[in-house]
Amino acid sequence: MKFNKILLIGVDEPKLGSSYWDRINSLTENKVYLPKDDPQIKENLKDADCLLVNFGINVTKEDIDAAPNLKYVGILATAFGKVDVAYAKEKGIVVCNLPAYSTESVAEWTIAAILETIRNLEEGKKRGRAGNVSEEGITAIEIKDKVFGVLGLGNIGTRVAELALGFNADVRYWSRNKKEDAEAQGIKYEELDDLISNATFLSINLAQTPDTEKIFNQDRFNALKEGAIVVNTAPMELIDLDALVERLKKGDITFIFDHSDEMVEEDLKKLIPFENCIVYPPIAYISSEAALNKQEMFTSNIENFLTGAPRNIAEAN
Amino acid sequence: MKFNKILLIGVDEPKLGSSYWDRINSLTENKVYLPKDDPQIKENLKDADCLLVNFGINVTKEDIDAAPNLKYVGILATAFGKVDVAYAKEKGIVVCNLPAYSTESVAEWTIAAILETIRNLEEGKKRGRAGNVSEEGITAIEIKDKVFGVLGLGNIGTRVAELALGFNADVRYWSRNKKEDAEAQGIKYEELDDLISNATFLSINLAQTPDTEKIFNQDRFNALKEGAIVVNTAPMELIDLDALVERLKKGDITFIFDHSDEMVEEDLKKLIPFENCIVYPPIAYISSEAALNKQEMFTSNIENFLTGAPRNIAEAN
Repeated sequence: MKFNKILLIGVDEPKLGSSYWDRINSLTENKVYLPKDDPQIKENLKDADCLLVNFGINVTKEDIDAAPNLKYVGILATAFGKVDVAYAKEKGIVVCNLPAYSTESVAEWTIAAILETIRNLEEGKKRGRAGNVSEEGITAIEIKDKVFGVLGLGNIGTRVAELALGFNADVRYWSRNKKEDAEAQGIKYEELDDLISNATFLSINLAQTPDTEKIFNQDRFNALKEGAIVVNTAPMELIDLDALVERLKKGDITFIFDHSDEMVEEDLKKLIPFENCIVYPPIAYISSEAALNKQEMFTSNIENFLTGAPRNIAEAN
Repeated sequence: MKFNKILLIGVDEPKLGSSYWDRINSLTENKVYLPKDDPQIKENLKDADCLLVNFGINVTKEDIDAAPNLKYVGILATAFGKVDVAYAKEKGIVVCNLPAYSTESVAEWTIAAILETIRNLEEGKKRGRAGNVSEEGITAIEIKDKVFGVLGLGNIGTRVAELALGFNADVRYWSRNKKEDAEAQGIKYEELDDLISNATFLSINLAQTPDTEKIFNQDRFNALKEGAIVVNTAPMELIDLDALVERLKKGDITFIFDHSDEMVEEDLKKLIPFENCIVYPPIAYISSEAALNKQEMFTSNIENFLTGAPRNIAEAN
């Protein structure tokens, strides 16, 4: 089975390698690419039976109504909040996303960012480059035996916890639901506030929902142990920024994050001046392996739909 | 049982915390501290039954002959090459060293230094600090599934290999002797030259002996895969520096090391200009936990000797 017409919005040539395009091209005789917000989108939806969209592209009820032949929507991203998946389901349209292509990339990065901090590697490199071979004044701690807390035990949180176990940390988690598999591995459940006050290392891996927005509030920032290191690879909406700034001022914790690109400049400028706030561009998810997983999953999602065995279906909560 | 007189050479006040000094003080009524090469050392050896020396202090046959009452020599270091342990043994003197106090510190650092490199963290921090939130051009790879080679499977090498296993790397080792325990954990033996040419990551954890000096020679540097990352936390005597420089010139491997303080300035200056040679001060072994282990082990070595159950006896090969 093939598609009559694949409409791509925001998914242009450089987004996929040529071998993936070859596979997609073999699935249709008719492929139309349009950029975001192009006026020709509506016209092209009329006869499209496959719609492929990039991260952040809206697919509304109106768009779906404009596409009476639509059978499949493929999203080149994990997030599917911009696509009306509930309405698509009503209309019998399958929507697929890329649920976990960057799990390993983000999890390894979390450990990397912690180790970089606790081993003072930037200072070490600076000295080495200057021919200064003295270790005087460079401090270091180990991950081993420390309480390593993971907030949110989805794919990424689980992998972060597993990596921390490899370092023989005392790994604990908090998640809305208890996870028996993780507990069988030695990852212990702890109540949120207990975990925040007991942890030396904290990895925030919660999904952004109305319940988790600003979950890291003033009380919780105040509860952090002296010397605690918090890594947030999740959206900064989980953080009460004013509370973070207040705690950073005390100079006794470190906050590390990488979703800086999603922040308004004014907010970002509040954080950058703090030496104990380590701001990264969004580099946790970008490993070469993740980039390949992403392309492979996006392409095989389409193929799997056509062979009648769709995988990675995006479901409304 | 107590000592009549403890003579300390180079082991001054700041080397140990007060609780450790309390324990040592309780083991004798008579404690004499002298700095290295002090002219009074010989005189003080006459009636000392316990000699405690810092890293790098010579204890020669002559010194031992000058100390007819000597029963115990404690070294505040792992290395015991400066102490004539064979002659001490002949005289019935027990020599103890600190065999593995920094294992975890060095092993975690090895992973830290690799991750810092493969995730381009220095560049990320630089951008974040400048308010540049673009990930454009920052590359990253994962440890997972890569061949991770460990040369030398002593305490540190074994722990590096275990940490790499936690990342689901394809962990292989080469060591003079096969290690069944490690192999049971999934750490596979490979011939030295095969391992060098197959590995993406290589951790050098060999002891320095006449057999291992310049073991990393020109052929072996040439055999490294493009993109290979070599971390040497062992002495630089294992490395043929000219061969290293030649390979660094190609710009397709990364060499990371931390024993820069033991190099002559002229050699160090050959390496610093290479962007793909990452020079650190000796910071792999310096974790706070290692510093405590060191003091605890040094002190309990003395106590264990006095209770008739000496541990960590330094034996000549």
